[in-house]
Amino acid sequence: MNGPAPSTEALANLNRFRITIEYDGTAYVGWQRQANGRSIQGAIEEAIAKLTGEAVTIRGAGRTDAGVHALGQVAHFDLIGKPTSRTIRDGLNAHLRGEQIVVVAAEPALAHFDARFSAIGRHYCYSILNRRAPPALNAGRMWHQPRPLDVAAMRAGAALLVGRHDFTTFRSVECQAKSPIRNLDRFEVITNGDEIRVEASARSFLHSQVRSMVGSLVKVGSGSWQPEQIKIALEARDRTACGPLAPPHGLYLVAVDYPA
Amino acid sequence: MNGPAPSTEALANLNRFRITIEYDGTAYVGWQRQANGRSIQGAIEEAIAKLTGEAVTIRGAGRTDAGVHALGQVAHFDLIGKPTSRTIRDGLNAHLRGEQIVVVAAEPALAHFDARFSAIGRHYCYSILNRRAPPALNAGRMWHQPRPLDVAAMRAGAALLVGRHDFTTFRSVECQAKSPIRNLDRFEVITNGDEIRVEASARSFLHSQVRSMVGSLVKVGSGSWQPEQIKIALEARDRTACGPLAPPHGLYLVAVDYPA
Repeated sequence: MNGPAPSTEALANLNRFRITIEYDGTAYVGWQRQANGRSIQGAIEEAIAKLTGEAVTIRGAGRTDAGVHALGQVAHFDLIGKPTSRTIRDGLNAHLRGEQIVVVAAEPALAHFDARFSAIGRHYCYSILNRRAPPALNAGRMWHQPRPLDVAAMRAGAALLVGRHDFTTFRSVECQAKSPIRNLDRFEVITNGDEIRVEASARSFLHSQVRSMVGSLVKVGSGSWQPEQIKIALEARDRTACGPLAPPHGLYLVAVDYPA
Repeated sequence: MNGPAPSTEALANLNRFRITIEYDGTAYVGWQRQANGRSIQGAIEEAIAKLTGEAVTIRGAGRTDAGVHALGQVAHFDLIGKPTSRTIRDGLNAHLRGEQIVVVAAEPALAHFDARFSAIGRHYCYSILNRRAPPALNAGRMWHQPRPLDVAAMRAGAALLVGRHDFTTFRSVECQAKSPIRNLDRFEVITNGDEIRVEASARSFLHSQVRSMVGSLVKVGSGSWQPEQIKIALEARDRTACGPLAPPHGLYLVAVDYPA
């Protein structure tokens, strides 16, 4: 968390809130506040300041990269005041008008709730448009693959990544996670007309993990890799064994799970 | 068709093509070429001229209004030259770059094929986002209804419109069709999370018919009308008995059917 930590006494008097957020990531430098442009986090923090007069730092469940979208990002923050959930949701949306960000839901949270560290499941979806013509209605929201992809081969490749593995091959060199081991609970390839959708669920992901896995699956779909090459790449535990990184604009953070 | 009709001899030497088109209608004055702004038809005709050097008039299956989208609009046109279907599709898409229009498919058509008059079925979909927060990812592509709508009541109202009726109440005063009688084959209300989708199929529709019917259904969903009011409105055969017109940006021309 940025800024000085509040004292224990102050914490005791703060009210914690949890918000669920939808955004089109196209126009933003990503979730995280940065010096070089407008971030989702920064836009929401500004809206909170305008609504409540309080300067807060919000923490999101997933630090999505520039261009990545969200249907159900979750974040938390603390206020001295205690506005109703309805005031937070509707008031933030009023102050976010003109942004490609909306607060879908707001609710009070327990003091120990942490959008990032309390999460027990994250669900991402990667959307590929597999047809010769580029997208018109969903430009900037799908990865365009003009040549036919072999979905059965992609499914065979995807199945090899499910489970607990060292995902060193499939994480960005900038990934700051201490361990490269993750448990990939679900990794499925679904078709809907011209769309190929790759759905991934895990407690947590490494930086660029979904895009790295999808880029490698597309190598399989295009026939450059046999499905088994996915396993060889995984076992290499070497970033250079990864396929090309899929671009950010096909990726969506769909939902985040917390204990009931 | 605009312009002078080609002579019979010229027609005999022309090659007719059929294209399937996807577009985001937000930035356009509608399908039809108009003096007051950029139209879908005009943009495609310009692209054909750039690709082939031929000045043609294309005819679409449905003259969608400003702001209405299409997943599967169909149009035809004639060329003196005989490019391959692939050249037409890919060449038009190259010249349409920067527009929110793509040619999904192109194919040769018989000389008597007419995108508008040969059509035996048209499928529209109207998308409503029914939640308090406005859309972020689909802004400009869904009608935002912040108050909960009663979907069961909407379904009951929709069922009353299916069949052969005089749809005078549900057509624009500007509608140029000779007869107000249409056969509504299908009119269904489907939900998917926060989305309420109204799907309509008929051989042909009157001007603004889908938006008029959807606007009236939303009156039912919000409780201002009982479902039976739909029948009363229909039987009034009076435009002033219609509910408010649903805005264009929720409407999609999904597909057009032709005889095999």
